[in-house]
Amino acid sequence: MSHEHTLGPDRARPATAPGDVSPVEVIVVSREGVRERTDWVAVEEPLEIRARGPGQQPVSVAVTMRTPGNDPELAVGFLYTEGLLTSLDDLVTARECAPKSRPSACNVVQVVLSRPFDGSSLQRNFFATSSCGVCGKATLDQITVRSPPVAPGPVVGRSTLVALPDALRRAQTAFDRTGGLHAAGLFDPDGRLLILREDVGRHNALDKLVGRALLDGELPLAERILLVSGRTSFEILQKAAVAAVPIVCAVSAPSSLAVSVADRLGITLVGFLRGPSFNVYTHPERIDPHG
Amino acid sequence: MSHEHTLGPDRARPATAPGDVSPVEVIVVSREGVRERTDWVAVEEPLEIRARGPGQQPVSVAVTMRTPGNDPELAVGFLYTEGLLTSLDDLVTARECAPKSRPSACNVVQVVLSRPFDGSSLQRNFFATSSCGVCGKATLDQITVRSPPVAPGPVVGRSTLVALPDALRRAQTAFDRTGGLHAAGLFDPDGRLLILREDVGRHNALDKLVGRALLDGELPLAERILLVSGRTSFEILQKAAVAAVPIVCAVSAPSSLAVSVADRLGITLVGFLRGPSFNVYTHPERIDPHG
Repeated sequence: MSHEHTLGPDRARPATAPGDVSPVEVIVVSREGVRERTDWVAVEEPLEIRARGPGQQPVSVAVTMRTPGNDPELAVGFLYTEGLLTSLDDLVTARECAPKSRPSACNVVQVVLSRPFDGSSLQRNFFATSSCGVCGKATLDQITVRSPPVAPGPVVGRSTLVALPDALRRAQTAFDRTGGLHAAGLFDPDGRLLILREDVGRHNALDKLVGRALLDGELPLAERILLVSGRTSFEILQKAAVAAVPIVCAVSAPSSLAVSVADRLGITLVGFLRGPSFNVYTHPERIDPHG
Repeated sequence: MSHEHTLGPDRARPATAPGDVSPVEVIVVSREGVRERTDWVAVEEPLEIRARGPGQQPVSVAVTMRTPGNDPELAVGFLYTEGLLTSLDDLVTARECAPKSRPSACNVVQVVLSRPFDGSSLQRNFFATSSCGVCGKATLDQITVRSPPVAPGPVVGRSTLVALPDALRRAQTAFDRTGGLHAAGLFDPDGRLLILREDVGRHNALDKLVGRALLDGELPLAERILLVSGRTSFEILQKAAVAAVPIVCAVSAPSSLAVSVADRLGITLVGFLRGPSFNVYTHPERIDPHG
């Protein structure tokens, strides 16, 4: 089996990868009047993710609006966190395909698996029971079946956690001139940034990060800390749970269902991680407040 | 035709509607040590949107993670901005259905139309051409077909625009104790807030707002200003374009494709609307910098 993951310059595994930006001419309106200047916006383009098994025709699994860059990572990370790819052993290649007429454009990634791919098995995150119809509890019951509780993992001190957002921002600053990119960062228990990915979509940033870790053979992420730049939702926690991350931190607030998923699966959920303090919503046993 | 839009207390049409919040016990970790307190998080629950025509069986159109509240608005707004409902005349009812075993829970809205509903016609926002495969340009070409350019609409002064975020926040403050809700606000050209909706999902907040306007017979929104609390993406601009909003403002940054959609469809796109200044990305002719 050839593990030819077509990943371009990333093969050298830098900790960070820039989100693509594009120049725009803007008019700045202020009390002083009007001036024109060049600004930068985060690039948003559709990406089609296709998959096939041996001898199969590729099927279109999803189209997502993403920031170009690290697309094979995004594709395999998406397939992994959606339960369509369960092991690196099942992956043959993840390759960008550009149309012949526009070789510089690349908005399709084709993933080839070593086993038959069932396109109809795309697991939805929403489930119904007879007692509640579609509801949060049924969704939680189902995710508990899909993702076992995470391992105990590390205990991390307060001082380590409060330093993470600055480390993320320092790495981001080099690239994000736009104010428009979500970031996801993976840290070790000493607070060292291992992987940073940016995207206009928060789920995409996390899928890119998980895809990178998968391709490096680093899953499960049982000794790692995840930091996301925005809020935490059900979907962020669900993806983190599939990757078995024990500590999930966010600069902003969690939703009710994010708290429920973290509680149910044994994940330590931290919110409002800014400045010298933060909130711990679930499983505080992994946090040393005096460390 | 009975226009029995089951909208609960909203029928009196308040300008604002609270996003649902839920208490959680949190541990606050700071330099001073640890303390426990009750905090509030935004409720996130799945909502299933079903639709049917006369004599048809309902079909499940979408499941979205949303903050409960204004669900019939969300359902009709979603159907409208996705092109599945084109006029209030086609709407018979939009009604919440609770399972019998849990009458307080309501995670399904069923929309009944006066014409046959084609569930297979859910228009995707992503389109491919032979020259680029799936790409932003093909997506733009398609949206131009679906949504004609917006009307000239109002000219609005700088002082009116810079006052909008405070007006939105003042109305939000009453409800958002969580820091976790996106807001979408609809204003008239004098800066009066007409509708405010909140949700964990930014698209849901806008769909609720458009749904409310549709039910009030206020579409197209040709003389209105839209303000969203976060960033602007392709999808936000696409939904605003379907509702024919001429001025779209955001507290944060736009994506490249948001700028392209606004440019193509004649929408004035404003970003970084905070403090006394802001950026105008497209169609500045609707902004009076000295007004």
